[in-house]
Amino acid sequence: MATSSSHSAHGEPLTERSARVAAARKLTRRAGRDAAGLFLAEGRQAVAEALADPAGVREVFATDAAAAAHRDLLASTTVPVRIVTEKAAAGLSETVTPQGLVAVCALRDVPAEAVVAHPPRLAVALAELADPGNAGTVLRTADACGAGAVVFGTGSADPYGGKAVRASAGSVFHVDVVRGASLETLLPALRQHGVTVLAADGGGEAALDELTDELAGPVLWLFGNEARGVPADLAQLADARVRIPMRGRAESLNLAAAAAICLYTTQLAQR
Amino acid sequence: MATSSSHSAHGEPLTERSARVAAARKLTRRAGRDAAGLFLAEGRQAVAEALADPAGVREVFATDAAAAAHRDLLASTTVPVRIVTEKAAAGLSETVTPQGLVAVCALRDVPAEAVVAHPPRLAVALAELADPGNAGTVLRTADACGAGAVVFGTGSADPYGGKAVRASAGSVFHVDVVRGASLETLLPALRQHGVTVLAADGGGEAALDELTDELAGPVLWLFGNEARGVPADLAQLADARVRIPMRGRAESLNLAAAAAICLYTTQLAQR
Repeated sequence: MATSSSHSAHGEPLTERSARVAAARKLTRRAGRDAAGLFLAEGRQAVAEALADPAGVREVFATDAAAAAHRDLLASTTVPVRIVTEKAAAGLSETVTPQGLVAVCALRDVPAEAVVAHPPRLAVALAELADPGNAGTVLRTADACGAGAVVFGTGSADPYGGKAVRASAGSVFHVDVVRGASLETLLPALRQHGVTVLAADGGGEAALDELTDELAGPVLWLFGNEARGVPADLAQLADARVRIPMRGRAESLNLAAAAAICLYTTQLAQR
Repeated sequence: MATSSSHSAHGEPLTERSARVAAARKLTRRAGRDAAGLFLAEGRQAVAEALADPAGVREVFATDAAAAAHRDLLASTTVPVRIVTEKAAAGLSETVTPQGLVAVCALRDVPAEAVVAHPPRLAVALAELADPGNAGTVLRTADACGAGAVVFGTGSADPYGGKAVRASAGSVFHVDVVRGASLETLLPALRQHGVTVLAADGGGEAALDELTDELAGPVLWLFGNEARGVPADLAQLADARVRIPMRGRAESLNLAAAAAICLYTTQLAQR
């Protein structure tokens, strides 16, 4: 059965010392990703999502075993598939158990101006979010709730890191991603364009379950750092600071849980 | 200023070779916890929550630096505070940056029969939950939403592991914890006692936003494995299999996000 996969010029799998693999390994670091304009998507789910838009994928690295296991996925793509050694694949992986299948993808950033010019009905902005897993999880939740854009403010974790891409479960390929935006500039601009900006804040003056009209129109939710919350100067730029009413004894929800509740509630209100 | 902290008999901090520290280090493994009936709670928040019920705390280990930093917390407790070296404290820690403050606490398990005899209005059961961080996050969310009990079914992650305790952010001290329960036995027993059992299931026949009366009475939510969901034989024992309506393109929410949405929605319905 013919596939589009190829071995190196010598017919052997590419090793970790090959120029292609060495170049890809630089993408495991943010500086490398930003310099090349590329990121890595590992595992079947992410690679399948990436290949849905082949123009955004430069190449796929696969071990012999992975190429066989995912022949259905790889046989039909026009993207070059390079066979690599297990060790080379492991060097491109940020997981404990490398999956042997990695796509090299173009960064999917859109400029903040595009979000301002055409605000989606639901968007998310993250201020100083620290944990890459949370970056991916919030992307996934935002996608599930129909958000059109997720803005990673200056100083937030990189959604293109291995852990974030994995946690996003493919959603990094569905939602417009904005990185490094100045939220001090973006939030007022969005409000001028009719977007209600809501800051999630455990001590907020508004209760989520008492919002109604505010959620029905275009909304941007602003979430902050896992430990410190939304910076005060940004919270002041929001239309309201919103708390999630809780009847239990926990002091607060974790960031991903709070985001899920806020975004789901908004999705329901916007139907 | 006098505190209740004490050095070893020789006036020196306890090292990792001392019998007390070596015994405590065994609690970083589940088998050690179960054999001793004890677990470790690290960091100021967890230790403060633990010390709210001093009878449940055997001792606190603190480095000199931590004892000084948390003097307010430790000065007022009747629980023995043992000064340990930085290395000893690191051996009791499961974090990258040990906090130098660890309480040795009694396991807080309650028998499944107690939950059946007096079902809380809101409870959670976890079937084959794999990730310790998720175990703690679900405990935290359940607590915030007023749940009275969280049942960890056979084969689920241990809520008393270091990563789970940290993720619970103190909630392991607020909510009744049941471990190792046979959910095949528990779910029918709870239904007989008037509890509505709802299984979270992306392919469920009921939509969360269409449930009303079902959520107003006593409810137990059943969540499953992060990858495989609720085992089919358990899902069949529920009153309904419930999906979260989504308008976006993500295939599913992650477990902690789904639990947050289900539990928050139930909390609102039960007010």
